[in-house]
Amino acid sequence: MVKQQLVYEGKAKRLYQTDQEGVLWVEYKDSATAFNAEKKATINGKGRYNNEISSLIFQLLQHYKIPTHFVKQFSKTEQLVRETKIIPIEVVVRNVVAGSLSRRMGIEEGTVLSKPVLEFYYKDDDLGDPLINEDHMNILNIASQDEILQIRKMARNINDILINYFNKCDVRLVDFKLEFGIDHEGKLLLADEISPDTCRLWDIATNQKLDKDVFRRGIGSLTDAYAEILQRLKEVNQHV
Amino acid sequence: MVKQQLVYEGKAKRLYQTDQEGVLWVEYKDSATAFNAEKKATINGKGRYNNEISSLIFQLLQHYKIPTHFVKQFSKTEQLVRETKIIPIEVVVRNVVAGSLSRRMGIEEGTVLSKPVLEFYYKDDDLGDPLINEDHMNILNIASQDEILQIRKMARNINDILINYFNKCDVRLVDFKLEFGIDHEGKLLLADEISPDTCRLWDIATNQKLDKDVFRRGIGSLTDAYAEILQRLKEVNQHV
Repeated sequence: MVKQQLVYEGKAKRLYQTDQEGVLWVEYKDSATAFNAEKKATINGKGRYNNEISSLIFQLLQHYKIPTHFVKQFSKTEQLVRETKIIPIEVVVRNVVAGSLSRRMGIEEGTVLSKPVLEFYYKDDDLGDPLINEDHMNILNIASQDEILQIRKMARNINDILINYFNKCDVRLVDFKLEFGIDHEGKLLLADEISPDTCRLWDIATNQKLDKDVFRRGIGSLTDAYAEILQRLKEVNQHV
Repeated sequence: MVKQQLVYEGKAKRLYQTDQEGVLWVEYKDSATAFNAEKKATINGKGRYNNEISSLIFQLLQHYKIPTHFVKQFSKTEQLVRETKIIPIEVVVRNVVAGSLSRRMGIEEGTVLSKPVLEFYYKDDDLGDPLINEDHMNILNIASQDEILQIRKMARNINDILINYFNKCDVRLVDFKLEFGIDHEGKLLLADEISPDTCRLWDIATNQKLDKDVFRRGIGSLTDAYAEILQRLKEVNQHV
């Protein structure tokens, strides 16, 4: 496998083409950003934690037959994925009220939801990633009705699997963000990453935050929190 | 019919109980507000235009078997309605991009939508009436799944009826806001008003605004615009 030209650089990752058609080489960066990149920092080790955590989670999801872009972890900070055309939607699944849901609805952070809440955000930095509904997705022509249905179903399945997994780690899965892509065969795949950058994860006993809110809110060491998550996931993984 | 105590005063209307159980007396006020009441004015005649226009439109909708709270117009500025418990949702139907949809999605005002877009906003001034989705409505417990389905269906029917009616008046129905209530028998009824306060109405030939945007944007005489709408509706109504 040979790394070729850079095809995309985001806030947290670089994607390169490889000599294998349809396979991308992903490099996780050590940069942390929040509030639409208004807050930025370089945090040594962050790329490694996210790559290792996301690799573990994607392997778990594949074990449960969720179709994902993940091919394999390649090094501490690198992984291989199948190339997809990313649907410009952030799918957020919430089990407990936090962050923007708390602000939008005036509901106290920490309120447990009786049923998971699904939200779609349009990925557009200039527009501030607005919340949208299915009619908006229709007029943007970014996903078919069938794809939206599939996305809803997969998001709920992934939520069930992850609630259970994190529960075994004594971690409450508060909410998380998913992205999906379409591969060259037209197949819908879970893409991007699942990590403390894209989830809210609270210690089940103390509600201590073990995710990017540590950085967003400046309330401790991000690497300590991410290391804690990785360690707990690995321990449980050995017993699965 | 005797007017009794005031039960509600909003930005544009006062509601009184009457000596008839379940019937409210509505008085349309001459006040105009915009931007969550940051911009305010008293405009002589506005209450009369809205009462007359809304009465005409509700009668039309009843003719088409839409269940509404409307009982009858009572005077130039007053009407009687059935009492309902208002569902705290603003239902917005859009045929052409304008206002917040243009800002939210970065689509140019005036873009014609290939299909109508339905939006739900949570009526809460403190929260700024946020856009919400069906999962949010579920957790707020403000409408059942069945009521949401009924609301969607009624909103689309009302849109079809009104597009056609305004079209005969040489007016483009750009978008409009609906509110629904539940009467004492548990029946879902169209409530509130439909007027140039709650619709965007553009002259079909010139795109001249004939609605509250005239006030919001300070681009002319609100009463001239509302008078024009009333006159056109009455003319067409005579020929229906």
